[in-house]
Amino acid sequence: MPYEEAAEPLEASPIACELLGLVGCGELFAFETLAADATRTSILEIKAALGSRACREFRNFEKVADRLRAMGADPDAAIGAYVPTMTEFHRHTAPRDLYEGLVKAYVGDGITSDFGRELSNYADPGTREFVAELLEETGQAEFVVPFVRKALSKNPGLEGRLALWGRRLIGEALAQTQRLTADREELSVLLVGTPDQPGRGDLAEFARMLARMTDAHTARMKKLGLAS
Amino acid sequence: MPYEEAAEPLEASPIACELLGLVGCGELFAFETLAADATRTSILEIKAALGSRACREFRNFEKVADRLRAMGADPDAAIGAYVPTMTEFHRHTAPRDLYEGLVKAYVGDGITSDFGRELSNYADPGTREFVAELLEETGQAEFVVPFVRKALSKNPGLEGRLALWGRRLIGEALAQTQRLTADREELSVLLVGTPDQPGRGDLAEFARMLARMTDAHTARMKKLGLAS
Repeated sequence: MPYEEAAEPLEASPIACELLGLVGCGELFAFETLAADATRTSILEIKAALGSRACREFRNFEKVADRLRAMGADPDAAIGAYVPTMTEFHRHTAPRDLYEGLVKAYVGDGITSDFGRELSNYADPGTREFVAELLEETGQAEFVVPFVRKALSKNPGLEGRLALWGRRLIGEALAQTQRLTADREELSVLLVGTPDQPGRGDLAEFARMLARMTDAHTARMKKLGLAS
Repeated sequence: MPYEEAAEPLEASPIACELLGLVGCGELFAFETLAADATRTSILEIKAALGSRACREFRNFEKVADRLRAMGADPDAAIGAYVPTMTEFHRHTAPRDLYEGLVKAYVGDGITSDFGRELSNYADPGTREFVAELLEETGQAEFVVPFVRKALSKNPGLEGRLALWGRRLIGEALAQTQRLTADREELSVLLVGTPDQPGRGDLAEFARMLARMTDAHTARMKKLGLAS
């Protein structure tokens, strides 16, 4: 019961709500993505591994909702605000098979986490620590990386297709990040600033953030054995 | 740790393995169905409710796998044996929207549970009790029934479509049950018997079992406010 634990009430700053909304929504969609991947194989062992990871993401979503509640915020509003963006991302990146699904789970999770960590630089220390811990332990990598690498070594045609797929994922993710930052005033003011309200960041810093996210994506693709 | 608890080892009879295989696979597919339903709505509250139920089904799947392991059986083999049948059922009953998805989750879960309970009449008391407890607490009904009833009152065209959908679900489920009983020797011998090996049941009893399952389905459809 977060209400009882908290000696001093949690800070419900707008940026903390934005950040937790984003991260919570990311966890929920990671759950949905991994559960959908489970249906893409008939090998029980893989189904079970994906299901178990999906449920871990769902528990993280619940943790975020609990924290928002403990802050006195409405989790449905805070997390729900990100549902259209995430839905749009998923509509544009529907995997055609298990491999595309797994690459998406790993790479998509990574991109959301990166953006979450970037945002958390602007949040209070308590929220920052909470988000860091949450994003730390998703542990997709250990499962997806060897699985995809093994598949690559067996299917010569797969590498090119998955490399293109990765480019599609990062392209769509960056497009959504930019759209989001333009659409959500809180994020826009924070990350970029407006003519009458300078942000803590600015357009140059925002561009550098996107560049950092792209670099991290490239590193993840390399880990999978794929060009970006 | 089931191994440590068990004062006397669990009985690994063929029928216990069949039954747990069926029930475990049913739980896994219930997880997949509910998680897929979560993607069919953009209302966060409903996404969260479906996700939470999906994860409960997944935990039940894990409990079944643990018990099979504690019996000295291979859960991948026992549960995996039912994956083709379940996959076939799902291929023939792909929901077109959230309503069809929810009716399928509720009604499909009910049919699998009914078949599980029928089979458990032939199993040892320990397995019977384990399965009964597991099937008791799925609790789809409290969520799905009011949700569907409310939708029916708002969408006049929905009732006819969902009634037909229910008929498709039970038809496909009974077809798969018959196919399964014919294909899996253990089930066939048990439920129907063979010329050289009389079963504990026979063809007449098997037909009565299908009739009982159909009755239970009719009752569930009625609870949803739908004709069967």
